[in-house]
Amino acid sequence: MNPDVAWAVWSGERQRRIEDVLARTLPAAEHAPAHLSQAMRYAVLEGGKRVRPLLAYAAGELAEAPPAVVDAAAAAVELVHAYSLIHDDLPCMDDDTLRRGKPTCHVAFGEATALLAGDALQALAFGVLAGGGLPDSAGACALLAEAAGVRGMAGGQAIDLDSVGAALPLAELETMHRMKTGALIRAAVRLGAACGRPLAPAEAVALDSYADAAGLAFQVVDDVLDVEGSAASLGKTAGKDMAQGKPTFVSSLGLAAARQHAEALRIEARSALAPLGSPARRLAELADWIVLRTH
Amino acid sequence: MNPDVAWAVWSGERQRRIEDVLARTLPAAEHAPAHLSQAMRYAVLEGGKRVRPLLAYAAGELAEAPPAVVDAAAAAVELVHAYSLIHDDLPCMDDDTLRRGKPTCHVAFGEATALLAGDALQALAFGVLAGGGLPDSAGACALLAEAAGVRGMAGGQAIDLDSVGAALPLAELETMHRMKTGALIRAAVRLGAACGRPLAPAEAVALDSYADAAGLAFQVVDDVLDVEGSAASLGKTAGKDMAQGKPTFVSSLGLAAARQHAEALRIEARSALAPLGSPARRLAELADWIVLRTH
Repeated sequence: MNPDVAWAVWSGERQRRIEDVLARTLPAAEHAPAHLSQAMRYAVLEGGKRVRPLLAYAAGELAEAPPAVVDAAAAAVELVHAYSLIHDDLPCMDDDTLRRGKPTCHVAFGEATALLAGDALQALAFGVLAGGGLPDSAGACALLAEAAGVRGMAGGQAIDLDSVGAALPLAELETMHRMKTGALIRAAVRLGAACGRPLAPAEAVALDSYADAAGLAFQVVDDVLDVEGSAASLGKTAGKDMAQGKPTFVSSLGLAAARQHAEALRIEARSALAPLGSPARRLAELADWIVLRTH
Repeated sequence: MNPDVAWAVWSGERQRRIEDVLARTLPAAEHAPAHLSQAMRYAVLEGGKRVRPLLAYAAGELAEAPPAVVDAAAAAVELVHAYSLIHDDLPCMDDDTLRRGKPTCHVAFGEATALLAGDALQALAFGVLAGGGLPDSAGACALLAEAAGVRGMAGGQAIDLDSVGAALPLAELETMHRMKTGALIRAAVRLGAACGRPLAPAEAVALDSYADAAGLAFQVVDDVLDVEGSAASLGKTAGKDMAQGKPTFVSSLGLAAARQHAEALRIEARSALAPLGSPARRLAELADWIVLRTH
């Protein structure tokens, strides 16, 4: 099969699979309190590129993990991601009204319900992971907690808020993003791999290097698309981050250099995988997809 | 030793112990991002009756658990409780400005930081529990996730919000509180016990019955104190819940009957412990303390 077609088939299958897993994992829409259950489903289902679940599935294949176990890891990281988007969009944070082409959760369900939906999704993520049948479920929960907490995503978000209007040096910008988005992306890769056979130390190091570069690349591309997307949309001014005065890779490096930086990180991510050979094929394709995407 | 003195010594020792455990578990005040670390410490330390940790320690003694393991269970439930208070106090929820005699977290640190502090505390709770050395850490994480999520605390909170201005029948009021506060109280007892030897089925049933009654008693007493406390404070009108039009045990039963209901639940909690004998002594004393407290 043509590699591009094989990738499209592989990723499409897994995007449909995680959608099913999430739909089964979330409380039914009529589960009391229905308003909260519906807000949780609204924020998670039918949307998103499912980058983190795909990373988990790809790492799971490398570790020869049973797909039904990887489902738990993939769902857990996506639930944490979805909860973080709900809270990020709240008026006291980024105050966004649109997400994935539909009203944000608090616009659709009210602020209080959105806040609780995020809280309940975080709890659900740990519940799914704890009950997922991984070889070391407790270790997996500890890893997810570290990635989501003050040393990871929540901490990166706080630095992001503190740096509005500031001109962060590139190194600090990278540190912020390694926490804010990178920590959960690294967790997706590690947790997917943790569903399978034990990795040799060199394999684990290679995976971490890959995930670090891929996570940073993801954020650089996000920053580039924030600018290019808005420039292409007639009648809009600058992108959201720019308008909010947030430091970005584009504001730090300029557009052309940011694009080059993303490409360099893509090469770095692929190079890290080299010792792992063809079982790491999907991870390599994911790095391409992350950098070459247009939305 | 006089039983009252013995209880005071036991509870005081454990209150100091959990304070130390929490202080060590939380990120240091200077840990970057310092603003977030400080908000987390502010919301958790130097405040609160530590009812949930005391329940965990008392249940741990019943199960002959190593106190160092119970520390993890006690800290986890208290961290979840503290995060829920931060989020409950936010303007989009109860909009409270005072908590434990000091400004609420969002008043002291801003809404965005308070939101993230709550989020990070929830993650930390699971991290502490997962790494706490319990006989079944993954099972413990699953239990905490259930208690904190849509079927427990977050779900109960959503029902509470939906019922402002409504006159809930007593049965629905009890269901709401079994989720909102009861679920985490039951989890505190179960997790404390889960740190020790396996319980016989009859012991587990007795503990659950105890925790159910004690959790409900705790809420009934809260409602009574909300009214009595405010009546005693000259110049204040009604209590907070009353002012917000929330259904309470006092609005549902009247003050005298609510007091009687709390006393009946105290007896029920103590009766449930009868088959467990003297190893359940601290749990029985806790039921008394919960109902007979004045703040």
